[in-house]
Order: sequence, then structure tokens, then C-alpha cells
Amino acid sequence: MHIGLIGLGKMGFNMRERLRRNGIDVTGFDRNPVVSDVMSVTELASELPSPRVVWLMVPAGEVTEAVIRELAEVLSPGDLVIDGGNSRYDADIRNAEKLAATGIRFMDCGVSGGVWGRENGYGLMAGGEAADIALAMPVLDALRPEGERERSFVHAGAVGAGHYAKMIHNGIEYGLMQAYAEGYELLAGKDIITDVPGVMRAWQDGTVIRSWLLDLMVNALDEDPGLSRVAGYAEDSGEGRWTVQEAVANGIPAPVITAALYARFVSRQEDSPAMKMVAALRNQFGGHSVRSTDDVVPPETPPDVASRRQDPDVPRAAVDETGSPE
Amino acid sequence: MHIGLIGLGKMGFNMRERLRRNGIDVTGFDRNPVVSDVMSVTELASELPSPRVVWLMVPAGEVTEAVIRELAEVLSPGDLVIDGGNSRYDADIRNAEKLAATGIRFMDCGVSGGVWGRENGYGLMAGGEAADIALAMPVLDALRPEGERERSFVHAGAVGAGHYAKMIHNGIEYGLMQAYAEGYELLAGKDIITDVPGVMRAWQDGTVIRSWLLDLMVNALDEDPGLSRVAGYAEDSGEGRWTVQEAVANGIPAPVITAALYARFVSRQEDSPAMKMVAALRNQFGGHSVRSTDDVVPPETPPDVASRRQDPDVPRAAVDETGSPE
Amino acid sequence: MHIGLIGLGKMGFNMRERLRRNGIDVTGFDRNPVVSDVMSVTELASELPSPRVVWLMVPAGEVTEAVIRELAEVLSPGDLVIDGGNSRYDADIRNAEKLAATGIRFMDCGVSGGVWGRENGYGLMAGGEAADIALAMPVLDALRPEGERERSFVHAGAVGAGHYAKMIHNGIEYGLMQAYAEGYELLAGKDIITDVPGVMRAWQDGTVIRSWLLDLMVNALDEDPGLSRVAGYAEDSGEGRWTVQEAVANGIPAPVITAALYARFVSRQEDSPAMKMVAALRNQFGGHSVRSTDDVVPPETPPDVASRRQDPDVPRAAVDETGSPE
Amino acid sequence: MHIGLIGLGKMGFNMRERLRRNGIDVTGFDRNPVVSDVMSVTELASELPSPRVVWLMVPAGEVTEAVIRELAEVLSPGDLVIDGGNSRYDADIRNAEKLAATGIRFMDCGVSGGVWGRENGYGLMAGGEAADIALAMPVLDALRPEGERERSFVHAGAVGAGHYAKMIHNGIEYGLMQAYAEGYELLAGKDIITDVPGVMRAWQDGTVIRSWLLDLMVNALDEDPGLSRVAGYAEDSGEGRWTVQEAVANGIPAPVITAALYARFVSRQEDSPAMKMVAALRNQFGGHSVRSTDDVVPPETPPDVASRRQDPDVPRAAVDETGSPE
Repeated sequence: MHIGLIGLGKMGFNMRERLRRNGIDVTGFDRNPVVSDVMSVTELASELPSPRVVWLMVPAGEVTEAVIRELAEVLSPGDLVIDGGNSRYDADIRNAEKLAATGIRFMDCGVSGGVWGRENGYGLMAGGEAADIALAMPVLDALRPEGERERSFVHAGAVGAGHYAKMIHNGIEYGLMQAYAEGYELLAGKDIITDVPGVMRAWQDGTVIRSWLLDLMVNALDEDPGLSRVAGYAEDSGEGRWTVQEAVANGIPAPVITAALYARFVSRQEDSPAMKMVAALRNQFGGHSVRSTDDVVPPETPPDVASRRQDPDVPRAAVDETGSPE
Repeated sequence: MHIGLIGLGKMGFNMRERLRRNGIDVTGFDRNPVVSDVMSVTELASELPSPRVVWLMVPAGEVTEAVIRELAEVLSPGDLVIDGGNSRYDADIRNAEKLAATGIRFMDCGVSGGVWGRENGYGLMAGGEAADIALAMPVLDALRPEGERERSFVHAGAVGAGHYAKMIHNGIEYGLMQAYAEGYELLAGKDIITDVPGVMRAWQDGTVIRSWLLDLMVNALDEDPGLSRVAGYAEDSGEGRWTVQEAVANGIPAPVITAALYARFVSRQEDSPAMKMVAALRNQFGGHSVRSTDDVVPPETPPDVASRRQDPDVPRAAVDETGSPE
Repeated sequence: MHIGLIGLGKMGFNMRERLRRNGIDVTGFDRNPVVSDVMSVTELASELPSPRVVWLMVPAGEVTEAVIRELAEVLSPGDLVIDGGNSRYDADIRNAEKLAATGIRFMDCGVSGGVWGRENGYGLMAGGEAADIALAMPVLDALRPEGERERSFVHAGAVGAGHYAKMIHNGIEYGLMQAYAEGYELLAGKDIITDVPGVMRAWQDGTVIRSWLLDLMVNALDEDPGLSRVAGYAEDSGEGRWTVQEAVANGIPAPVITAALYARFVSRQEDSPAMKMVAALRNQFGGHSVRSTDDVVPPETPPDVASRRQDPDVPRAAVDETGSPE
Repeated sequence: MHIGLIGLGKMGFNMRERLRRNGIDVTGFDRNPVVSDVMSVTELASELPSPRVVWLMVPAGEVTEAVIRELAEVLSPGDLVIDGGNSRYDADIRNAEKLAATGIRFMDCGVSGGVWGRENGYGLMAGGEAADIALAMPVLDALRPEGERERSFVHAGAVGAGHYAKMIHNGIEYGLMQAYAEGYELLAGKDIITDVPGVMRAWQDGTVIRSWLLDLMVNALDEDPGLSRVAGYAEDSGEGRWTVQEAVANGIPAPVITAALYARFVSRQEDSPAMKMVAALRNQFGGHSVRSTDDVVPPETPPDVASRRQDPDVPRAAVDETGSPE
């Protein structure tokens, strides 16, 4: 089989490698000529057998829209476009309609596995019509891990269903990561635990919480046992936000996924306007002293450590302020 | 009526003022001789008529325990100790039992109102036996605002019930403050809102969310419209923690009060170990770049502002990394 | 001054009353002829002096859109439409643009105060141009409570800013209500508290948490002390959802407002699919027994009460199952 | 090696099987004579070689305390007691001190793996002195899975550290389960997803979120694809509560673990007092109708489904009530 692959960034580049290794001919296009096999989308189309199959691995949103407009010009009725990027599921439905106007077919395919997918294979979640998915099956089989197909591939439903499933996958991922991370912080903050990385390493086999993410956490601690080189600053890629917005729109409670998302938001704030207000309010009613924005924290006792050292059974404000109830 | 008052800090000092102004004789004792009326607890006891009524306004925990041990030595059967501080309700039960061994009576009284109570009067929540509360009633009436007694005083139940009610009061207070603070941050972050303090000022009359805390927020914004002089760093006084621990022990969900407490915890962390782990994990599976602990944030674009500017419909990681799904 | 008022439901009807009482002439229109002053929007337009001022108090979304389309037909350049309903702020911006095409002016005005506003006056948050707001000022002054204007009215910013401020107001309201409600449940579940309504009544004066919502809670408990006639089932009106979606879109953490929204979602579920999965999982790994959907709860020990009675220091699964760790 | 094992419930029974299969002689005692090898703890002690090693697998709290008191009578200096149950870590410290008074040694060992551990091996987290752990090592090696020891065993620190690590393990487990469960509910509520079990099955290989818990979820859906036989009612075993209490006591935010715990609390409530109050409040200020406790939900449209069908862009209260803002 011979397909086109547009987008040869971190993911697309690796996928081309895996596809070729598993017997799929791939003509790749990227704006970066160093990695691209052809000079243009038009050239890419001219090299593919009919019906053409073109896999997109480009950023969601404007870039995907632009590439699909370009493909609508150069592809023919019966050709198949597969959006393998991180598009929002409702964008799929719009893109499928646009392409259908010229007889071009469309399916979406969520891809999971990160940079490890090149060796391990990728988990795949597809949306679209059965005939289109059947056409793409050799490609899907080449991308996914060896073993039973149903453990790494699903035809989740109509167009959009693949990206919807991937979106939920990522929402879950946020929750899982935060759960482990909270556990890590609780371990790291407890004096009787003398081997935090060892505890996490020992969870890898036999326990209820063993997982691939746990294995990665052990890797991270092997490289940097105290995570001293990493700042507590976490981006979010958009799919966690969409998951929460979907939950809210549908009246479905998602407290864990949302808490994980908010923890990332907080991690990126230099100073929280909300907590400024809380501090200002405490000062208003209780005369509690506030920390000025000019205060310098003495490096030997960072405030988080100091706050944890306090005995929770002795209200701190009371100790400082002789019985000042809120 | 003539009572003793032990603890003349921010709260006790103000309460002595209000009591005297409302016709109660008060002999106050504090370790600080500048504010103290007598030199010792023994001297205080010698000045009071029988049965003695002694109000404690000292820090919860060890200090309260120590004062109660001292009072057990110098008071007589039938005398009444009132713990008006922020003790945990189970401490009241233990303290009442200790004093009962020598025939000394005990009641607890949660006090709310902060530094404004001196002028406005205090809200009072009492626990103990009806006879003891009746004995203390002139004091209670002098402390609370004028007007109907039941709007500012309750006999909430047996010993401990007063502080239990006060603990819940403070837990609610955490939730209220955080709700307003989140609203403030959402207003402050929206470009079409050109008068944030004006919006909050306009909520003071007629709206569903009018409250005394809102009035204080308006005061704070009058003094410092952008809260530029206050850091987003909020202490907690212990009662919020107790409320959450009580909820957990009793199997009662308290998501709002808990979220408010955790927001304060987070506000005090220089760098979050949990978020270090999340960042390290993202790097492990997705090759997402992490922020090093050495990174300097360019002052013209603090990370929180930058992160908010991004269009949530365009996944950021994808834009940066050409289709890198998680 | 003489204005038109479209929508005479629970809110619009009361507002017409208050406006007339305060000297504003009002011609009201509603599909319900029993309350309507005129038979059509056209008739309403014909009765108003120029420039016409028409206040909308109809459901957000399709109904508002339809009324605005109708007004675009019958109004003239320079007339002013005020959307006082609960429209989303971005709808205002679209509606203002549509009307501007025919020279009709637009402003939005969030209204708070509920059924009590008729007597107490309403809190008002306006968005739009200063000249339009000046034109509407007699109406605004008639609607809001007596006293300083800035305590119950704000010109929050450009078109949309009024509804944005009202949306945030409602988000805050969700958080406030849930904070009090959690406190109520914690009080109601504690045996040493013998007068739960009394505790809440005593918070009305002097305490830090006094508010209008607290007064309403006391009213509710006066009418039904155990809330035995009300089911724990709470709708949401849409503005809480919008607030959370706005927070997520802008990368602003809003844990308290979100927790309050999710508590309402949960309150409406007969059985939670998520918790079915948690129960099924516990059964899978631990052999923990699950509750079948056919199980009848014996009325003498409802499950929530039973679960709270357990001693949290004795793991229940362990007691039942002789040392079965998860 | 020959050890005693007290407690032959679901976990202890399976552990005896695994130990014997892997070459450890086990004399087991349980109050249930059907499974017990000996008639009493005294008989058990008499059969063991010196120094005796006795593993406890009994319920935490009172039962563990009672067994330890009994062992203090029949064991000799130098014997080793291993608490493998789910004791709280501070109980370990007390128990170790009690036994030390008579020269008996103590270590704690958290055990994970559930009913599957008999075949798969158990994950083990130990606390205590190195010499004691060395003595127990043949037992630990027999219990854990084959393969590298450090992937399924850790000497986490001093006495208590093993149970502390196990407590955190369980807290994480709560978070993981809830994250997956929320994802499941979001999938199950979306019409374009036509194969919910298939999606979860496809996550087992290649994806970032693959884990043993996910495998169990797939098992559960294989047995009952719609989970129609399981009620959404989840117990908690105590360790999740301890984790949250530990977080609160130490000032460490744990929003995800806490949200997971609260979701279980809510799942067990027939009717929520807090949500009764929210409903009553909405009725007070907005005249919003409440659901009476007598209301019968028509079976064809359960309220959760109905609520999800509504269009979130059209505020429901407004539609019903003609412009009734909160």
C-alpha cells in the first residue's frame, strides 16, 4: 500500500518510520524541506495511486483547515483523507462535509502513544464509515502494536467519534497524571519515607496501580531523583479543556479531570488574582497580616515547607495573634 | 456583672472594650503587662465575685490547655470557665471533663466578627448546659450586636457544640471567600470589563450575592484597586482544616470548602512537587519541553498572562510541535 | 419616561410593577394576553415616543433572537433595545451588530434580585455606550434600590460587559450557595448540634458570613425546619455552565464555582454511570461485593446514614472481609 | 522457612496458598475453624521455629490491636510480627512500641494486588529495621511476582513507612479509578460513540493510559457491557479518607484524590441534605419550583438523561419561566 502523509513533526516523522518499517510506502510532505519527500501537496497527490489515501498529522485548527482546503483542490472523488492530528470532534464533522461536496471521503483517527509509539506502536481510535476504515486498515495495522487488533484499535462510531474518544483519553490522562503526582507529593513530604523513588519503583509489578504512566514516572525519577531540574509548570494541550467543556455542556460531573486541568492552570500563574483577594479579605475582617508583593522569601525556609511544618492542631493565626478568630 | 478575661490580644482587647462600654466589669489578664489589669491568674481569681466567670481568649491548643490547668488550681467549685477562643470541639469535651473533676463548670463559645466586632458586636455560638449559659447571658448580650438575640446568639447544644458551629462557620467562610475571589479573577481577566471594582461595588445592594464579605471586598478595592500591594498568599487558621477532616471522618462530601482550603495551600507553595511530576511525565511520553528551574520568565509576558492569551481552540502543544498528540 | 417591556413572566411582570410605581410609563407585551398591555410588538412600537426604549425580559437564546429580529423590523434608527434577560455575553455582541445595521442601538443589562426585587429593587450591571446608558438611566434608577447609585448599578464596559458581569455574579452565587449548603449538611449530621436552624439564625448578625442568602436560608428553615418537603435535586440555569466554560477557555482556575455546578449535576442523577464503573472495578480487583440495581435499601438504615455511622478509623472493607486490602 | 499467618479471609487465604506453592511452610490461624490450621494463637506459636515470624492479615483497628496483645503474651524476645493488613501508619508506631517492651520485633508491610495476587504476586511496601526485613525476605520474595525485586518490593523507611506508602497507593488508586470512570461516563453519554466497551478495549495497548485497572474495566464491560447489573454505589475502605486527612494535616493540596473520595460519599447518599438546601434556596430567591420528596420520576425519562438532553446554550430556567434571572 502507498499513502501520503502530511506533517512530519515529532509525531508524523516517527509514524513515517514505523509505517515504512512495516511495509507501507509513504510519501511524506512537510513545510520543512529537510524532512519532506516532495515539494508540495500537489506533487504528493500526483505520486499516489488511486484511490489516494492521505494521512494528516498537522496541528489542529487553522493549519488543518488550510491543508484540507488545499487537498480539496488536488484530490479526486473517492480519495480518502484521514485526520490523525488532535482536531476537535466537531471540526471533523465540518471537514467531512466540506470534502464530501467534492466527493472526497474523510475519516478521523485519534492517535496515542507519544514518542514511544515508533517502537511500541500507537493506540488508534477511528471515526467514519466502515468502508473507509476498511480501506485504511493496512495502515492502521502497521501503526498499532502487534497483537490482537481490538486491544489497540477501535472503530468508535461515525465521523468525529475517533477524535471524541481521543479527547476523552486525554482527559483521563490528565486525571491519572495528577493522581500519581499528588501521591508523589504526599510521599515526598513525609519524613518517615526514606526512599520515594523506591516506593514508586515497587509499584510497577503486582500492585493495583501499575501502569505505563507509572513506568514513565520511574524513568523520570531515575534521571532526576528529586525532580530538581524541572519546574512545577505544566502546559495543557487543549484536549483537557475540551473534555471539561464537553462535560459541562452535557451536565456530566467530571470533578477529577477538572481538578487536574485546574492544577495545570494554577501551576502557570506567577501570582493568583483570586488568592490576592482572599489575602486582602482576611486582612479586612481579621486584621491578618498580608504578604506584600515586595516580600522576599528567605531561601532557607520556602513558604510551602514552612507551612507544612506547622502543627495543624494549633491554629497558626491564633498562635501568632493571640486568639484572633476569623 | 464582673468577669475575668484571659487573653488580651487582637480579639480579647477589643472584647474587653465592648464589654466595659456595655456595663460589664472586666478584669483582664495577659502575659503582656502593658495591656493586663492584673499580674497573674491567681490575682485575677482573687478579684472576682463568686461564682466566678472567666472568659478565655487565648490561642487554641497548648496555651488553652495550660491556662485551664492553671485555672483548675485557683478556681472553686461552681465557678464557670468560658472558652471563647478557637479550640477544636473535642478539646472542649476533654477540658470540661478535667474541670468537672474539681467541680468547676465549663462552656464553649465560638465568636465571630473579627476586628469589626468591637463596634458591630460579635456573633456568638455557645455549647454547654442551659444553667451555665443563663449565668453568662449578660456577658453574651453585651458582646453581641443590639437587636433580636436569636439573630446573633445560639445555644447550639452540649459542650463542644459552640466551637463545632464556629468551625463550620469558618469552613463556610473559606468557601464564600474563594467563590468571590474566583469571580474577581474572572472579571479581572476579561478585557470587556473596564471597571472591575465598580462591578463589585454594584453588587452591594439589590443582588442575590450581597453580603458583608462583599462589602469588605469593596473596601479592599477602594484602598488598592488592582490589589497590587498584596501577594496571592493566604494562610489558614486551622478551622478550615478541621472542617474538612470532620467531613471526611463523617463521610460527608464538602467539595467547595475543601477546594477553598486547597487553594490556600497552593498559594503558599513556591514550586509544587506534584506539578514537577506532571511536567516530568509530559516530557517522558510526549517529549514536551519542560520549564527548567533555572528559566527566567521575561517580565513583559508573565506565564499566566501568556497562557490565557492562547486560543483554547488551537491546542498549543500541537501548534508548537507539529501534531504531537499526547 | 415611557418605555416598552417585552416579556412579562415572573421577572418582567414584577419589574413592570416596580417601574410604574416609580414613575415610569410602561407598555408591556407578552404572548400571554392576560398580562399583556398590547396585542403585538408592532402595536407596542406604535405607542412609544421617539427615541423608543424597549426592554427585553425574555428567555435567552432562540426567543431573544426572534424578538430582536422582530424589533429590527418595527423600530427606527436611534431607538434603543436593552436586553435585560440572561443572554450570554457573546450573543449581545452579535445582536448589537445586527441591530446596528439598521441604526438601532443596543445595550445589555444583567438584572439580579429574583422575586424580591419588586420590593427591594434590583442590582443592575450594564454594558454598552455611555450615551445609551444615559438615555436609560431613569429606568435604571427606577429599577434599582434607593440609595447610592454605585451600590446597585455599574456601567461595566462595552456591549456584553453587563451580561458578563451578571454571568460571573451567578457563578459566584453557585459557590456561595454550595458553601452554605455544605455547612448545613455538616451541622445536620452532627449529634452534638441540637438546634441546626438556630445556629444558622444566629449567623445573621455580627458574624463574618452574614449575607442575604443566609437570611433566605433562615426563611427556608423557618418554613420547613428539616427541609423534609424538598428533594435534593437542583437545576442549573445555564449561567453557571457558562462561567465554568469561560474559566476553562481562559485558563483561569475556578475550583469552587465548578464544584458547586457539578454538585447540581450529580443531584439530578438517578444512578451515576461513573460510580457504577467504580463499583464494578472494586469488584474486579478486590472481590468487593457490589450493590445490585435490584437491591432494596431497608428503610430503617438508609445507606448514607449507615455509611456515616462507621468509625473511619476502622476500614470497613477490612472488617467485612477479614483483611482484604485493595 | 516456616511462618505463622493470622487471618485467613479473602486476602490471607490466598496468600497462604501462594506462600506454600513457593516453598514457605505456613501455619495459619483464623477464628473460622474451616480454614484454620490450628485452634489458637498459642498453638500457632508453639509450632513455629525460633525466631518466630508471624504475619498478620486481620482487619485494621481493634482486631489488629487485640491480636497484637495476644501475641505479646505468647511470643518471645527476638520474634518478629509483621502487620500485613491495612493498619494506619501511626498505629504501627504504637504497636511496635508496645511489642518492643517485651523484646518482640515489629515491621509493617503494605500489600497490594487484590484477589489476583494469588496468581500474579503481590506488590509489597515494607517499613521497619533492615535486619527484620532481611529476616522476612524469603517470605516477601515468595509473595511478590517473579522478576526484579525492586519492581514489586520496597523498604520504604522506618516502622510505619510501609503502611504509609500503601495508604498513598490506595489514595492514588481512588483517583485513577475516578478518572477512568468519568471518561467512561462521558463516552457512554455521547451519541456518536457507538461502541463504548470497544473504545476502552482499544486503549489497552499502545496508548498513554494503558494500565492494569483499564484491563479490569474491560473485563467488567465484557461481563456486563452496560453495567446494568451494578448500582452506582461505592464503598470506601478507610485508606482514601486517611490519605485526604494526611494531605490536610500537612498542608498539601490533593484535589484529585479528594474529589474521588467525595464522589464515593455522594454515591451512597439517598438524598443530599446540602442539595436540599440549594434547592430550597433557589426557591426562596427565584421562586424556582422544587422537586418534592414525593415526586415520582417517570421511568421513561430519568432526570439525569433529561437534564443532559437540554441544550446548554438555552438556559433552562429561563425557558420555563420566561426570563427569570437568578
